[in-house]
Amino acid sequence: MKPAFELHPQLASDTLFVGDLPLGRIVLMNESRYPWFILVPRRANISEIYQLTKAERSQIWEESDLLSRQLMQLFQADKLNIAALGNMVPQLHLHHIARFKTDAAWPAPVWGKFKAEPYSEAAAVQRIQQMRQALGI
Amino acid sequence: MKPAFELHPQLASDTLFVGDLPLGRIVLMNESRYPWFILVPRRANISEIYQLTKAERSQIWEESDLLSRQLMQLFQADKLNIAALGNMVPQLHLHHIARFKTDAAWPAPVWGKFKAEPYSEAAAVQRIQQMRQALGI
Repeated sequence: MKPAFELHPQLASDTLFVGDLPLGRIVLMNESRYPWFILVPRRANISEIYQLTKAERSQIWEESDLLSRQLMQLFQADKLNIAALGNMVPQLHLHHIARFKTDAAWPAPVWGKFKAEPYSEAAAVQRIQQMRQALGI
Repeated sequence: MKPAFELHPQLASDTLFVGDLPLGRIVLMNESRYPWFILVPRRANISEIYQLTKAERSQIWEESDLLSRQLMQLFQADKLNIAALGNMVPQLHLHHIARFKTDAAWPAPVWGKFKAEPYSEAAAVQRIQQMRQALGI
């Protein structure tokens, strides 16, 4: 039996649950400065993309593609930033961030720039609902 | 006829040519602090992954996978960072950076941290040869 997937405690504490696609869990980064979603393959003990099987890689990139399109469509952003870093949280997770030329960190990457500005409860619920609807989950 | 691919002038000036895979060009970031390779799909006027066709996406992720494995194998790094940002250079390019717990920027991302420390000519030639051999190109 495969070991069970559990969201890394740091990711769990920094994000809000959006929903599950066939392979990945989508969570919303609780940082209201940017529309920032994270796709986490629901597989235990994986820290690099190449550790997924070929079928899983193909699936996770399809899900990344869907998330990317919906994110850009919903927010009409200037640029999408996609990244798998994991220097602090080793569990493989794929950042998808809608960037604007007017956003707080532009044109720098968002990591390590500011302390997160959490969503109000109402704003979080709205953003999550919006993305669930866009993804059909 | 499709418009011809040309490497963005900023990428051309920041990097050294390594070689071409079927879809992507591989270049070495001229920053000796980290083993940092960039994979650029040889397609004109593309700034986001989802703008590639499905076949091209599948191909570029296969090439990313190959580059990732070889990079980690060659340098025995602690973590791989993969990212498509493009806030400054809109031409789609995929960073692949071998990271070490002892490197200059760890655990922060590498972008915008330091002014690049270029390779000596001999070190650049060696690194490029090493990667060409690993990739079989």
